Amino acid sequence: MDIKIGLIGLGTIGSGVAKILKENHEILTAHLGVPLVLKKIADINLEKAKGLNLPHEMLTTRVEDILDDPEIEIVIELIGGCEPARSFLLQAIKQGKHVVTANKALLAQYGEEIFQSTAAHQVDIGFEASVGGGIPIVRAIKEGLAGNQIKSLYGIINGTANYILTEMEKEESPFEEVLQEAQEKGFAEADPTYDIKGIDTAHKLTILVSLAFGTKISLDQVYAEGIDRITPLDLQFARELGYKIKLLALAKDTNGEIEARVHPTMIAQDYLLATVDGVYNAIYVIGDRVGSTMFYGMGAGEEPTASAVVSDVIDIARNIQKNITRRITPTSFCEEYRKEKKIKDINQIIASYYLRFSALDNPGVLSRISGILGEHNISLASVIQKGRQIGESVPIVMMTHEALEQDINNALNKINNLPFVTEKTLLIRVAELD
Amino acid sequence: MDIKIGLIGLGTIGSGVAKILKENHEILTAHLGVPLVLKKIADINLEKAKGLNLPHEMLTTRVEDILDDPEIEIVIELIGGCEPARSFLLQAIKQGKHVVTANKALLAQYGEEIFQSTAAHQVDIGFEASVGGGIPIVRAIKEGLAGNQIKSLYGIINGTANYILTEMEKEESPFEEVLQEAQEKGFAEADPTYDIKGIDTAHKLTILVSLAFGTKISLDQVYAEGIDRITPLDLQFARELGYKIKLLALAKDTNGEIEARVHPTMIAQDYLLATVDGVYNAIYVIGDRVGSTMFYGMGAGEEPTASAVVSDVIDIARNIQKNITRRITPTSFCEEYRKEKKIKDINQIIASYYLRFSALDNPGVLSRISGILGEHNISLASVIQKGRQIGESVPIVMMTHEALEQDINNALNKINNLPFVTEKTLLIRVAELD
Repeated sequence: MDIKIGLIGLGTIGSGVAKILKENHEILTAHLGVPLVLKKIADINLEKAKGLNLPHEMLTTRVEDILDDPEIEIVIELIGGCEPARSFLLQAIKQGKHVVTANKALLAQYGEEIFQSTAAHQVDIGFEASVGGGIPIVRAIKEGLAGNQIKSLYGIINGTANYILTEMEKEESPFEEVLQEAQEKGFAEADPTYDIKGIDTAHKLTILVSLAFGTKISLDQVYAEGIDRITPLDLQFARELGYKIKLLALAKDTNGEIEARVHPTMIAQDYLLATVDGVYNAIYVIGDRVGSTMFYGMGAGEEPTASAVVSDVIDIARNIQKNITRRITPTSFCEEYRKEKKIKDINQIIASYYLRFSALDNPGVLSRISGILGEHNISLASVIQKGRQIGESVPIVMMTHEALEQDINNALNKINNLPFVTEKTLLIRVAELD
Repeated sequence: MDIKIGLIGLGTIGSGVAKILKENHEILTAHLGVPLVLKKIADINLEKAKGLNLPHEMLTTRVEDILDDPEIEIVIELIGGCEPARSFLLQAIKQGKHVVTANKALLAQYGEEIFQSTAAHQVDIGFEASVGGGIPIVRAIKEGLAGNQIKSLYGIINGTANYILTEMEKEESPFEEVLQEAQEKGFAEADPTYDIKGIDTAHKLTILVSLAFGTKISLDQVYAEGIDRITPLDLQFARELGYKIKLLALAKDTNGEIEARVHPTMIAQDYLLATVDGVYNAIYVIGDRVGSTMFYGMGAGEEPTASAVVSDVIDIARNIQKNITRRITPTSFCEEYRKEKKIKDINQIIASYYLRFSALDNPGVLSRISGILGEHNISLASVIQKGRQIGESVPIVMMTHEALEQDINNALNKINNLPFVTEKTLLIRVAELD
């Protein structure tokens, strides 16, 4: 018996999925023993269908043609955004259909509602494509590392931000210029807010945290800060200090207390993760037994993301073949064992910091700044001041030892108000991948 | 209902498995909803049990106490080697028990027999731990990338060999010296033959090829060459030329014809795979949709390998809970779709080559060598000759353009017989990761 699929959303990824199901039909059948049949594609804009050479009767503008078709057992949602994606998914689930989605924004905000609905209706949900594009990271955490207590994870999971930082460093060009180039080349969207502000990364981190630590976490508990204040000068200082700056999604479980944060991060150049450049993604996961692992690949794009979507379809198809559902729960944790763990406030984290002050190059400035830091229990590991231009604004870079973020903030509030400080101090957190 | 497990072989990995099942009991139960219970451990030597604080009744020297126990549903085989491991596994399967093994030598040689037996008795087999230690690479290929036609894969999958090459480069020390140090530190076994001769890597590659390409392949079809002829000089030349030398497992599917080979390989320094040093493993997999992916982690050791074993136990336990078996076949390919693909003879491969000649530094030597190469359709990309010592033996390094290995062999046979050639020419194949 073949297994029939409905696809809602024929955009970039949707086209990729339609192509795989058609062009890799033979190998998919070799895996499953039965054909996967894409029965219906629904989109209000069927523009992309032209290049795909699909039979006319496969296409529809009415989502009901999928949701109400009793033959369709798996519904793939690839329209993105919260509505109407959420309603469509919930309707499909209610109709007893299994669902596959790449929608990280939706899962980060309505994941619990959707997961609960799959439980109520005893259907499966796949969302491998929601994090890390083609990298099978969801499966790796849920299954491959299931014997471990995950201690921490560190992800470069936004290709646009990583591309911009890589280019800024390579070309020594300012953020705005590189962003514009990225937009022209199609590596950044017309509205890049989610990517550059760390919001997309926070969406993905919310999903990863729920898988890695078996806890419920809401998007607003994830601290998110973007890359738009980083300058080529910071990338240069970082290099001199032996670091790379990456937009990192970082999560840790320390005795049941969770840190979950997204921000530009300095990581030592010799970490494997530091060498992940351009549009590539990588997730570094540390388990109590397996130690350090890393999963690397294309984090976005039509075909890599479609590869992940299809892996979920195959997974669900295998359940259909065995006439079972919910062999694994959406997070892999049984509901009764999911814990409400405390999520640490960003002010309570302890880290080392890169601080770039902009101050008039007057005598006593350095001592005044370091004095205030000292008063707030912040000790310095190194100081770089380059070029002397008495009376003009110069950058002063300080690397701190480990300090409480609250102390850093209090100190910076004072320092930023000093008369000779010309610009808000830039702070970049340092991460040790342990 | 709890799920009962029997463990055969309480060596390093076996101890690691016993520890995880005990110490991570809580998280395992959170994943499954029911406890995994290690009921029996069998080994002729129960020395390791002392440190584990296990109840006396759990231990036995009689494997029948596991094989004949109807309560035990999953048998973990961790004794290694072909016999009696093969017999034990086949007996367990015949008794209707699901099996988990880390035994790459066994699977490379008797995989088909064992897989067929699991089909005949409708039980499951897990072997995640057989390749890449804690890296969930078996799962990644079978499931995560199942929507792809895998085009090629490149693995650093022997930690001992990788450690030796890394140390040889770092310390500029000869092979024998580094090997001895590695043995003293416990990174190499007393008999290191399998590791340094590429045999262990060939075992693992045999498994990976059957998963990636859906083909049957026997161990003797995998070309294997070790690292024992590599010298610090080669590592130095490689660096100068922009390469690293790694013991690589390499497999490609070119229009249904398979290359599967293990040998010291030069790969460009800027590949992510080239930065994988020491005892770490990594597998670089290229799929037609997902593009390049890489999976990195500890390729050996008690706890990482045990992590992989336990992931298989969880997987099988989930099937037991749903009262199903064989949701996925051992290779993920349905038997009737597995193809007998042609395996390319090593003489028929096309590659670029690093050739290090040892020749007396006489006039005309270079022209004679390059002349013979030219006669065999081998053109040169670069030549390095360092230090002139008329009348003494010097190394001459040549990088070729792409050539047929048969032509290279024919040319080297002639060159090695020249009177001024003092030592057998060293050949290292270059790999482009595409």
